[in-house]
Amino acid sequence: MLVLAIDTSSSRLSIAIRDKDRLLAERGYFSANKCSSVLLPRIKELLEELNLTLTDIQGFVVGLGPGSFTGLRIGVSVIKALAFALSKPVVGIPTLDILAENVVLADTRICPVMDAKGGEVYSCIYKFDGKRIKRLSKYLILPPRDLLKMLKSKTIFLGEGLFKYKELIEKLNKRLSLFASEGDWFPKAAVAARLGLDRLLAGKPDNRYKLTPLYLRHPVKLK
Amino acid sequence: MLVLAIDTSSSRLSIAIRDKDRLLAERGYFSANKCSSVLLPRIKELLEELNLTLTDIQGFVVGLGPGSFTGLRIGVSVIKALAFALSKPVVGIPTLDILAENVVLADTRICPVMDAKGGEVYSCIYKFDGKRIKRLSKYLILPPRDLLKMLKSKTIFLGEGLFKYKELIEKLNKRLSLFASEGDWFPKAAVAARLGLDRLLAGKPDNRYKLTPLYLRHPVKLK
Repeated sequence: MLVLAIDTSSSRLSIAIRDKDRLLAERGYFSANKCSSVLLPRIKELLEELNLTLTDIQGFVVGLGPGSFTGLRIGVSVIKALAFALSKPVVGIPTLDILAENVVLADTRICPVMDAKGGEVYSCIYKFDGKRIKRLSKYLILPPRDLLKMLKSKTIFLGEGLFKYKELIEKLNKRLSLFASEGDWFPKAAVAARLGLDRLLAGKPDNRYKLTPLYLRHPVKLK
Repeated sequence: MLVLAIDTSSSRLSIAIRDKDRLLAERGYFSANKCSSVLLPRIKELLEELNLTLTDIQGFVVGLGPGSFTGLRIGVSVIKALAFALSKPVVGIPTLDILAENVVLADTRICPVMDAKGGEVYSCIYKFDGKRIKRLSKYLILPPRDLLKMLKSKTIFLGEGLFKYKELIEKLNKRLSLFASEGDWFPKAAVAARLGLDRLLAGKPDNRYKLTPLYLRHPVKLK
């Protein structure tokens, strides 16, 4: 079963194609603001490189956010439309879950941090139980200081939010804080593809029509 | 040649299906803020009512804006993705052009007005030359007072912007102003379908990958 996965929630657009046994390709593009014009051409390129066409794809996976409102609207809309056009199943994966999988480390909390603007972060607390990453908290939107108060044990942080808040976290929580390397601060579609494929193989796709981004914060109303 | 057209630029989502000779269906939904979750189900419903499937559609048409940023992002993304998935051509039509076609009246200027917030309107000046609607100005974003200064002859106004500015236009320009009835203040996908079909039959589709909304005003950057 071949799946195409994308994540458009961060400043790095990520696209991946995998089947049950292996990852066929993953590509990242730092181009969030041009997402509407780059997403379909990049998907097309990647398919062509693998000598595939879109009709070979048997399931679609999308990172649901939170993150860039514009990126999420476009990403989720495109994946739903592709799934609809080709009558294929679709799965949405919360972006914080995708991020958490970038770190597999026992005996620590895993804590992705994304900038939510307004002095707040999107976050969530996970641990690796030896087999898989388990979510321990709700999806959070809160000031980083409040997040740190929730963390009483050794924690590894990752995510784009660290570009803004790494120093603060180090200062307030030095003894208990570890940081993933910067290459792992972005959600990877390869991870989304794997998580989505598990859901599809378990016969648990999402509703192709009802799937909506996970904003956490309500978008500013433009008009 | 069967085409599916949508316009998501206004507070009324409009969907239409037509072939060369006739309009098969048009439907309007006042639901702009829920566009991401309603667009695909509504398209599906309309196809089912006509005993059609998406693969019967041979071309896709979308209203490009200006208008609701969120609506346009979703509408244009969805139509491009459908066209991509089904390898069908796509055409984008400026929403002001679609609006202007709601009025076919000789010997007057035709002037659609959409609220652009910040005390400005999106507009454009047209006339009907006996055969078709011709555009006489650039696509404009300007205060309504400045628009009225450009209009020296009898003009019929239409568009959602009149909910806000009809009184002002009447006050400043009473002698020369006519107003279309409120039912014609919204862009109709049926019109988009006709204009798009003409372009497709003339062999002039848009680039399926490069098509982007016509914002006129740069969207407020959220993140």
